[in-house]
Amino acid sequence: MPPLRLHAQVNPASMQAGAFNAALWDRLRAETVGEGLAASHSTDPAGFDAALAEAEALFLVGPAPLHDLPRRAPRLRWISYSSAGVEWLLKAGLPASVTLTNASGTHIPKAAEYSLAAVLMLNNFIPALVTAQREHRWAPRSGGTVAGKTVLILGMGALGGAAAEALAAQGMVVLGNSQSGRPHPAVAEMSQGDGFRAQLPRADFLIIALPLTPATNGLVGREALDLLPPHAGVVNIGRGEILDADALAAKLRDGTLGGAVLDALPTEPLPADSPLWDTPNLIITPHCGLYDPGAYAERCLRAFFANVARFRAGEALHQVVGLDRGY
Amino acid sequence: MPPLRLHAQVNPASMQAGAFNAALWDRLRAETVGEGLAASHSTDPAGFDAALAEAEALFLVGPAPLHDLPRRAPRLRWISYSSAGVEWLLKAGLPASVTLTNASGTHIPKAAEYSLAAVLMLNNFIPALVTAQREHRWAPRSGGTVAGKTVLILGMGALGGAAAEALAAQGMVVLGNSQSGRPHPAVAEMSQGDGFRAQLPRADFLIIALPLTPATNGLVGREALDLLPPHAGVVNIGRGEILDADALAAKLRDGTLGGAVLDALPTEPLPADSPLWDTPNLIITPHCGLYDPGAYAERCLRAFFANVARFRAGEALHQVVGLDRGY
Repeated sequence: MPPLRLHAQVNPASMQAGAFNAALWDRLRAETVGEGLAASHSTDPAGFDAALAEAEALFLVGPAPLHDLPRRAPRLRWISYSSAGVEWLLKAGLPASVTLTNASGTHIPKAAEYSLAAVLMLNNFIPALVTAQREHRWAPRSGGTVAGKTVLILGMGALGGAAAEALAAQGMVVLGNSQSGRPHPAVAEMSQGDGFRAQLPRADFLIIALPLTPATNGLVGREALDLLPPHAGVVNIGRGEILDADALAAKLRDGTLGGAVLDALPTEPLPADSPLWDTPNLIITPHCGLYDPGAYAERCLRAFFANVARFRAGEALHQVVGLDRGY
Repeated sequence: MPPLRLHAQVNPASMQAGAFNAALWDRLRAETVGEGLAASHSTDPAGFDAALAEAEALFLVGPAPLHDLPRRAPRLRWISYSSAGVEWLLKAGLPASVTLTNASGTHIPKAAEYSLAAVLMLNNFIPALVTAQREHRWAPRSGGTVAGKTVLILGMGALGGAAAEALAAQGMVVLGNSQSGRPHPAVAEMSQGDGFRAQLPRADFLIIALPLTPATNGLVGREALDLLPPHAGVVNIGRGEILDADALAAKLRDGTLGGAVLDALPTEPLPADSPLWDTPNLIITPHCGLYDPGAYAERCLRAFFANVARFRAGEALHQVVGLDRGY
């Protein structure tokens, strides 16, 4: 069997560039798939076209120019991306002969912890107390524990599932929503598609854990937010475009929502003059809440090289992105 | 047996005054101890002396004038206080013939949740991100999950024990310190008395859950804080006087501590001109984090009436405060 031509292209502008370095790449390749692989690793954009011309499989960290792939990459059969969000890759229009995989699942431990932290913060009025602190106001707010309260999770993929398990472990009632409506052991009640609207009025907390697709773009707008009870807290660990942040901010300002914790913002980085920064009862974590710099790259690469072994054995890959569904 | 003369005096200025109302008092008394009790309940300070003259047992919500008790309350044998912190009662100098009980344990579920929330916030850099948000700065901070990290808990009473269990459940290594050094099932290593200083250098997080006594007043000062690693986070759910907040703030400002979440402050309410409000990487919750308004009064009164049954049966009371140790 000829060696598999595998190339890793690391965009040096990516926040993850340093973590996905050649030393880690070489070590994990040696530990996992061994010999019989012609693998290269580069952080230099200049050599990308030459590597593309030979590559059968491509591992990408950060964006790379993917236009005109049938001509530029005639042997390419597989692209693996180092994050879960692949909307830019799908926009590039991949040839049908190329399988796309992503890093779905790599974020699970941090997604569980961040979701738990965000819901506990909302339940303990931290966004409101931080707003009061900014104004030097001693304004105590107390309430009950999260046990028995209800959280609705939109999107029951790797992130939503991790959140569901962490929150069910605190005695919360977890409602879930997904396109398939498939049951999940930590979820008391699943809904499908638009069925989440009937669950919103019962949600003390809403977690958005959806991928960005044409169907989810703008899904949680003013109309959906108005269905939440006025004490509800909102968390976004999906993509900023899914939530109408202006509608959210308006409701936080007029007190018809309890609070929000956003890791995904409509524009990233959020411009310094965005009114979101000063919105009351809103805490912004700048798209860093789900990333574990000490563990992410190794966990991601181990999953990737396990896929390389499957690819060489002609087995079905894991973490495959459905090009039509978009995740 | 003559009826036990029991009087509840509710200070109308107490934050808990509304919760400890006569209706709840009457309902729980009827449900728990039944007949054979001459019980009164008042929110009017004017009648306190007349009630004292007859009372054998006193239930207090908020401060009351307790000077000269042997003369004013000749039959008094027991005072029960509706909070855990009894330092003002001990300062009043109770006669040796009066047993003091408190509400130790009533805060357990909220103490567990607040401690978990505070440590997760520190682990996810929320104090630093909130400071950056105030300045409209997009400044991502990421790290690993709490699992495997170390938390040191000073004070292993009801609050410290609740925190230990909640944090051990997240896979954390819990170190504990108490006067007795008695082992606790959730604690990997207990120290006694001043032994906590040897544990400080290993603590990613420090939780102060001590009562205020002459021995704990000022215990966590600059010297102790300097023993923590510079990334460490500090939580105070005890009393403000135990922690030197100025020393803490200086270390937060010069970056030799990671962050802090304080529910107990040196002065309460904290004055509007206190520099603590604007200290970077510090989140203040105004002494409200451990209070559950929907559950506290009922949980506290049920424990009290269970003590009333013990008192009448001549059994040892629970929640007894050691007058010399101060908790």
